[in-house]
Amino acid sequence: MLKVGDHVNHCFLVVDCQELKTKYGKLYLSLNVKNRLLECGVKIWDWESIKSTLSKHPTTGCFVKITGTVESYQGMIQIKTEQIEVIEEGEVDPSEIYATPGIALEEMENRLKQYLGMIKNPVLKDLCQAVITNKELYQLLITRPAAIRNHHETYHGLLSHIVSMMGAAVALQAHYHFLSLDLLLAGALFHDLGKVVEINDIKEGGYSTKGRLLGHMDIGTALIDRFAEKTGHKGKEEVDLLKHLVLSHHGKLEWGSPIEPRIPEAMALHMIDYMDAQFYNIFKQLKETPPGEWTSNRSQSLFKHSLSPVDQLDHYHK
Amino acid sequence: MLKVGDHVNHCFLVVDCQELKTKYGKLYLSLNVKNRLLECGVKIWDWESIKSTLSKHPTTGCFVKITGTVESYQGMIQIKTEQIEVIEEGEVDPSEIYATPGIALEEMENRLKQYLGMIKNPVLKDLCQAVITNKELYQLLITRPAAIRNHHETYHGLLSHIVSMMGAAVALQAHYHFLSLDLLLAGALFHDLGKVVEINDIKEGGYSTKGRLLGHMDIGTALIDRFAEKTGHKGKEEVDLLKHLVLSHHGKLEWGSPIEPRIPEAMALHMIDYMDAQFYNIFKQLKETPPGEWTSNRSQSLFKHSLSPVDQLDHYHK
Amino acid sequence: MLKVGDHVNHCFLVVDCQELKTKYGKLYLSLNVKNRLLECGVKIWDWESIKSTLSKHPTTGCFVKITGTVESYQGMIQIKTEQIEVIEEGEVDPSEIYATPGIALEEMENRLKQYLGMIKNPVLKDLCQAVITNKELYQLLITRPAAIRNHHETYHGLLSHIVSMMGAAVALQAHYHFLSLDLLLAGALFHDLGKVVEINDIKEGGYSTKGRLLGHMDIGTALIDRFAEKTGHKGKEEVDLLKHLVLSHHGKLEWGSPIEPRIPEAMALHMIDYMDAQFYNIFKQLKETPPGEWTSNRSQSLFKHSLSPVDQLDHYHK
Amino acid sequence: MLKVGDHVNHCFLVVDCQELKTKYGKLYLSLNVKNRLLECGVKIWDWESIKSTLSKHPTTGCFVKITGTVESYQGMIQIKTEQIEVIEEGEVDPSEIYATPGIALEEMENRLKQYLGMIKNPVLKDLCQAVITNKELYQLLITRPAAIRNHHETYHGLLSHIVSMMGAAVALQAHYHFLSLDLLLAGALFHDLGKVVEINDIKEGGYSTKGRLLGHMDIGTALIDRFAEKTGHKGKEEVDLLKHLVLSHHGKLEWGSPIEPRIPEAMALHMIDYMDAQFYNIFKQLKETPPGEWTSNRSQSLFKHSLSPVDQLDHYHK
Amino acid sequence: MLKVGDHVNHCFLVVDCQELKTKYGKLYLSLNVKNRLLECGVKIWDWESIKSTLSKHPTTGCFVKITGTVESYQGMIQIKTEQIEVIEEGEVDPSEIYATPGIALEEMENRLKQYLGMIKNPVLKDLCQAVITNKELYQLLITRPAAIRNHHETYHGLLSHIVSMMGAAVALQAHYHFLSLDLLLAGALFHDLGKVVEINDIKEGGYSTKGRLLGHMDIGTALIDRFAEKTGHKGKEEVDLLKHLVLSHHGKLEWGSPIEPRIPEAMALHMIDYMDAQFYNIFKQLKETPPGEWTSNRSQSLFKHSLSPVDQLDHYHK
Amino acid sequence: MLKVGDHVNHCFLVVDCQELKTKYGKLYLSLNVKNRLLECGVKIWDWESIKSTLSKHPTTGCFVKITGTVESYQGMIQIKTEQIEVIEEGEVDPSEIYATPGIALEEMENRLKQYLGMIKNPVLKDLCQAVITNKELYQLLITRPAAIRNHHETYHGLLSHIVSMMGAAVALQAHYHFLSLDLLLAGALFHDLGKVVEINDIKEGGYSTKGRLLGHMDIGTALIDRFAEKTGHKGKEEVDLLKHLVLSHHGKLEWGSPIEPRIPEAMALHMIDYMDAQFYNIFKQLKETPPGEWTSNRSQSLFKHSLSPVDQLDHYHK
Repeated sequence: MLKVGDHVNHCFLVVDCQELKTKYGKLYLSLNVKNRLLECGVKIWDWESIKSTLSKHPTTGCFVKITGTVESYQGMIQIKTEQIEVIEEGEVDPSEIYATPGIALEEMENRLKQYLGMIKNPVLKDLCQAVITNKELYQLLITRPAAIRNHHETYHGLLSHIVSMMGAAVALQAHYHFLSLDLLLAGALFHDLGKVVEINDIKEGGYSTKGRLLGHMDIGTALIDRFAEKTGHKGKEEVDLLKHLVLSHHGKLEWGSPIEPRIPEAMALHMIDYMDAQFYNIFKQLKETPPGEWTSNRSQSLFKHSLSPVDQLDHYHK
Repeated sequence: MLKVGDHVNHCFLVVDCQELKTKYGKLYLSLNVKNRLLECGVKIWDWESIKSTLSKHPTTGCFVKITGTVESYQGMIQIKTEQIEVIEEGEVDPSEIYATPGIALEEMENRLKQYLGMIKNPVLKDLCQAVITNKELYQLLITRPAAIRNHHETYHGLLSHIVSMMGAAVALQAHYHFLSLDLLLAGALFHDLGKVVEINDIKEGGYSTKGRLLGHMDIGTALIDRFAEKTGHKGKEEVDLLKHLVLSHHGKLEWGSPIEPRIPEAMALHMIDYMDAQFYNIFKQLKETPPGEWTSNRSQSLFKHSLSPVDQLDHYHK
Repeated sequence: MLKVGDHVNHCFLVVDCQELKTKYGKLYLSLNVKNRLLECGVKIWDWESIKSTLSKHPTTGCFVKITGTVESYQGMIQIKTEQIEVIEEGEVDPSEIYATPGIALEEMENRLKQYLGMIKNPVLKDLCQAVITNKELYQLLITRPAAIRNHHETYHGLLSHIVSMMGAAVALQAHYHFLSLDLLLAGALFHDLGKVVEINDIKEGGYSTKGRLLGHMDIGTALIDRFAEKTGHKGKEEVDLLKHLVLSHHGKLEWGSPIEPRIPEAMALHMIDYMDAQFYNIFKQLKETPPGEWTSNRSQSLFKHSLSPVDQLDHYHK
Repeated sequence: MLKVGDHVNHCFLVVDCQELKTKYGKLYLSLNVKNRLLECGVKIWDWESIKSTLSKHPTTGCFVKITGTVESYQGMIQIKTEQIEVIEEGEVDPSEIYATPGIALEEMENRLKQYLGMIKNPVLKDLCQAVITNKELYQLLITRPAAIRNHHETYHGLLSHIVSMMGAAVALQAHYHFLSLDLLLAGALFHDLGKVVEINDIKEGGYSTKGRLLGHMDIGTALIDRFAEKTGHKGKEEVDLLKHLVLSHHGKLEWGSPIEPRIPEAMALHMIDYMDAQFYNIFKQLKETPPGEWTSNRSQSLFKHSLSPVDQLDHYHK
Repeated sequence: MLKVGDHVNHCFLVVDCQELKTKYGKLYLSLNVKNRLLECGVKIWDWESIKSTLSKHPTTGCFVKITGTVESYQGMIQIKTEQIEVIEEGEVDPSEIYATPGIALEEMENRLKQYLGMIKNPVLKDLCQAVITNKELYQLLITRPAAIRNHHETYHGLLSHIVSMMGAAVALQAHYHFLSLDLLLAGALFHDLGKVVEINDIKEGGYSTKGRLLGHMDIGTALIDRFAEKTGHKGKEEVDLLKHLVLSHHGKLEWGSPIEPRIPEAMALHMIDYMDAQFYNIFKQLKETPPGEWTSNRSQSLFKHSLSPVDQLDHYHK
Repeated sequence: MLKVGDHVNHCFLVVDCQELKTKYGKLYLSLNVKNRLLECGVKIWDWESIKSTLSKHPTTGCFVKITGTVESYQGMIQIKTEQIEVIEEGEVDPSEIYATPGIALEEMENRLKQYLGMIKNPVLKDLCQAVITNKELYQLLITRPAAIRNHHETYHGLLSHIVSMMGAAVALQAHYHFLSLDLLLAGALFHDLGKVVEINDIKEGGYSTKGRLLGHMDIGTALIDRFAEKTGHKGKEEVDLLKHLVLSHHGKLEWGSPIEPRIPEAMALHMIDYMDAQFYNIFKQLKETPPGEWTSNRSQSLFKHSLSPVDQLDHYHK
């Protein structure tokens, strides 16, 4: 995080932008900007003179590069701006703007392929490959967050959550060998896939109208139907099992699943999903807490004890 | 219902059929049979002599015509059989075997067409017509029950429930005119349509494996997708609204809807669905109860008061 | 609603009134006022000079006529007052001060009489007439709100709710003809009648002590007892049925009914009551929302879709 | 309890009575009878010869005096009858037939009067006296059970429950002296008074139709209204407080109170009522259990420990 | 409570203490202080001159004696300080700083001894004496609060709660004589004893880490084990019964008891505990409320009726 | 399982034993016996002649060796006995009588030692070793069931559950490396250790009185205290953390934990415990179900799909 006194030479998303006048009638520009290190206000007091020198003016939703210094003014953090410049979205590195997981994208993509390579059932293999080879869908899969808030609410968050769940599934199934690893892995890929439609782009934020009307489970099973049609597997048992994994992964009706788990892999997938989301948050909270103290979240504060390996680690999973 | 002493000359479904021996080593045939008027045992004591005279022997799941008399033997109802004959399924009138609604099939089909004729929105009209003109689906729609138990668990029960809901929707919308009648009617048609897959044929009974894994809501939205593709309406708002009506018609997560109602018509449809199921049962229970007494169902016994029009009526709705 | 810049020449209720001094020791009058179009502060800076010219001074709870202009001062809406005058309560048109339903009072009174005219059962007819002909009670019935907040929280709100429920009851019973229309109509009249005691006058607001100790259901059944005595129908079955409708109209113990519905009309009345309250609010929220957007209430935001007739209508029911 | 081999010379209620024929065509009388010591079947095999000698024949619902011996026949307890005689209801001592509390009726009546004598508030005093001096109501009050099952389900059970609650109220209030003893005592008298209408005579058993439609709380507040009218106290605060105590004595909406406790005495009365019912049952169960063992009720089995005074006592309260 | 204009000459706990500079660069001391009569800010504007005259400077967590006057500055209460002096903790009377019960400590200690003197069972007697004679534990027992908030959250609060529960137990058991008074009294002493570890010193406030990890029930049963070992009663039934009373005193799993009451004294103790906490709060709220009005707590507002003895009393129990 | 027609030459536990007489007055012995393969009745009709030839007569609770044949008599399974002999308990192999896990005892003991060898923290290591080296406790640990019913309700069931949880903990922690493996392993050993007191010997069955009064959590933390004292680790943080793991392993108050998980290992341990119990049962049910069918348990029937490895495996975990 950037602190008061730090020098700034970073890209920011402009969350809000208004051209205003001071009491004395002088034009100034008032912005709210954010990136993964800082969210604060910016006042450009000499806007009148700068305005004409800029080829493009900042607007709400655009990206800017700001040079200046972080300062505190009447208890509010601001950037004392030396220079501001509008940047094209294509030139911005999203990981400068948004929080990202503790593992690099390439590493996550490699693991994803490796885990999918472990699937032996030909129908499930084909359905998973159909996701990976669909360029548009794959692009969404690797960039979108897994949630609006609560867990994995980051750029690449969905991929990060899927890959960690796959790792946990492989570990657990090695012990509980009566579970089908193929179903666990395919289920991990598809269980939240509908979120690429349900949740908006991280820049826009929030849920889409389609998402609020249908939910990511129904969107997910419709994707499975589409891929089953395409791969010629329509009507096969594996298709229904995979849809069941998607529909039941919240575990109980009152948690949003229209069908409760009816195969052992559905129970396991629900528990892996729940654990992975919990552990993501627990690690994040403990990371910000000194040893011997309690985390600051009110609803379920946790104790950081002296045996905790958290401070030696960068990420909640290997 | 048939009573002790009544003469029998009826078709029955053979629920169970076994060839057994008496203590003295004589072969006899022991059957359990049922139709809409009687469910009881049948013993054919002279099976040894009859057996060779029958061109086809009764088996579990076949239909038989029995001539004889209803009698009570050691507190159990039986048919004292004079004649028994196996009947081909095609020659059996299902309404002799299974309970049916209080309105004739033709009347229900007419009303269905009439109500669908009230839909003005072209997308919803096309989606509904696609159901009606799909012969296989239409056949299931007009014969299947609406549930295993609880309500409209009869032959033609699903159609009966849909048509009654449409009647209630038209009545309510005439008062609450801010609701879209088109959505209410199309929602009534599609809300339980997935039950034609979820629930087995009334002869077999119970839920199908696909039904238990996916539920009738997901099956229903997949049908809408299929019809949207076919009618060229894929991607239109009406398609999402209709799917939303299907997904939310149980009203709350804990009652099995993965999405709670987010448009007024979804709230209304949920309430109409709930009311129609309740009223079907209430009428049935009150019909069996003398005035001034309480119905016999334990969980929510009802009082049949002196203002009740139930005894003057054959059916719970007009 | 009145906006900044609008000219004001309206009656207001004085919610709060204090005579204060400026830093420089000058007397001014600080008021909070509201009517159905505006709720804001008013500062009378020249109170010292005006004070003696007014025959009557404003006080908390009185009514005033204000001439002036709506303006914004430091983010707060105020009226820049040109003239202020105290008005006797009797001369104020309540519909200028308080929100009112979308149907005129006379129209609602006519419908009420028309619906009550449909009741054939002599006991229920007499009990309903006893309400209508009791001048004091009738006056409360046609002016009081149906609730403090949530639904029909307007002047004439109780009458509006009753009349709409009667309309819905007539519509539903025409389809579900096994229900007694007489009981539904009498139940609609009496179900919330105790609210005329439970809820204070709309000017005072809030609940009465008697209301908080007894609730509107017990107050309502005591009214029925009183009218049964008066009309000579004490001890008749209809009296108990009507009291049952009142006691059970919240549907479940946890929703405040000491007795759950035990006759079909009680179930129906509960659902009509619930629907009518819901639909009142839904319409109000959708009315304030542009097409294609979601209503702003957090707990259950609704989507205003393109088939919605809301924008063509003034009221949620016909 | 009567055991196999015991001689019988007791009155019984005839729960069921049928004249039947043996296989050989001989008339016999088959009865089910019960009193507080035994519930069993009786077969009068020589009915044909006895029948004409009896001036009155047993029927369902009548009372009989039987002389004979208790025996076990095929695992069923029966009375081998020597003599049977029909007895007029007026001549039967109810305490021979039904379970009764551990304190004599006179003692309970004395305590009731004594406790009511402690009430100083004139309004509450008058309302309570109105109960005691209403002969018909008082007769019901001292004979009826307090419940169908669960607690104090005995002849005189309601009185027994009321008197014990009064004793507990006096004890508690002596410690928690900020509570009004007058309200606690009057509340104890009235809280379940509606049960004299809600619950049938112990011989008939079960709930009345009026009771199922209205519940004992609404019946109770109507009684208070009637007595308030009679004693000229209508409209006084005490009347509303007493009605509030009745309406709120179940403590929570979901436990059947339409209004939750809003005065401290209502909270206290709810807890005393709950405790008294619990303690009645606990004592009864422990009494039947040997020291060092667990009671046999499944839902909440209790341990009879070595410090328990239960075996030295006849009744759960002093 | 101290009001604006009152003269101050009291001890205070310094909740927060900072040395700051005015706009003009002058040092001043800004404190937040509290005692049982006042919680407010204090500004020592002439800190520069006073500072060197004080032998000891105020710091967060120390105690000070302040002479001055209570005044209101910009809507905030402050003390206009004439003199300030740091006081050693040992010289402060805690009852000047913290709220205390309405009964003097000596009186409570006497009653405690008296109640414990009523215990006859030698094992329970020894276990209780072990608490009283353990100086360190006894000191905590008589000074600590019974809770962080909710009830008895005062200095001596735990002792106050225990003594009142003992009084209620004696009263109730005199009526419900099948309960063991020995178990009730020993249970009252031990039920919350673990709170002396679970809850920090009233000056520090909040829960201890050990308390949050183990809870006061497990800490309490470990204390019983320790005393059972010491007194040679290990393995006796009374030890398990006493531990059961501690473990079950919250009454239900969802209220935090790992074991629900399984002996009658456990049920009684739970109810006495619940009542005593409730009545403490109810009395406190009613004391602050004028007759005829409602208490200000939102969740369960209570009515102060005209029969309430609250205004004649200083404490909720005798 | 033994079937009708199978020859029997096995040990059985005598569940019930009575000497009775036939109608004709002849003595016979009627037994109910069970072992892990059969639970049925045995009638020794020639008891009169055999009786004197047996050195020891069967009694309820003893063990017998029976030679004979399984047969069906009037729909009940019985053993047609050729020979019967009473066996000393010490000579009986418990695994002939009771169900046992799918892994041999030696193998489980080896794994237990291996997993405990992975613990590095000296305090936790010492506490675990104290369990293993306490002969009496260790003997209970390796023989007792983990529950009365529901899961691991077998001879050696507790050990089996602990060892499987340790395997799952090692697997999961290898992925979620921010968890302390030492705490997970020590927690797995101690979490249900109190069950050796709470649950009776498998022959006796059911819960002990101490177990019902205190529960296995409180018994477990008392064991930790005892071992902490013995190993000189009293007062160390690890002791409190381990007690916290025991107290919180049911996850929520309403599931019986007095403290909810407050360290990540407590959350993980709760989930591993829950999963292991579930998976034990799921495997058992699926094992008894043919592929393509649903398990017979009503509450949550599961589908045995075609990808399930269950039929290739002997045990639910590796």
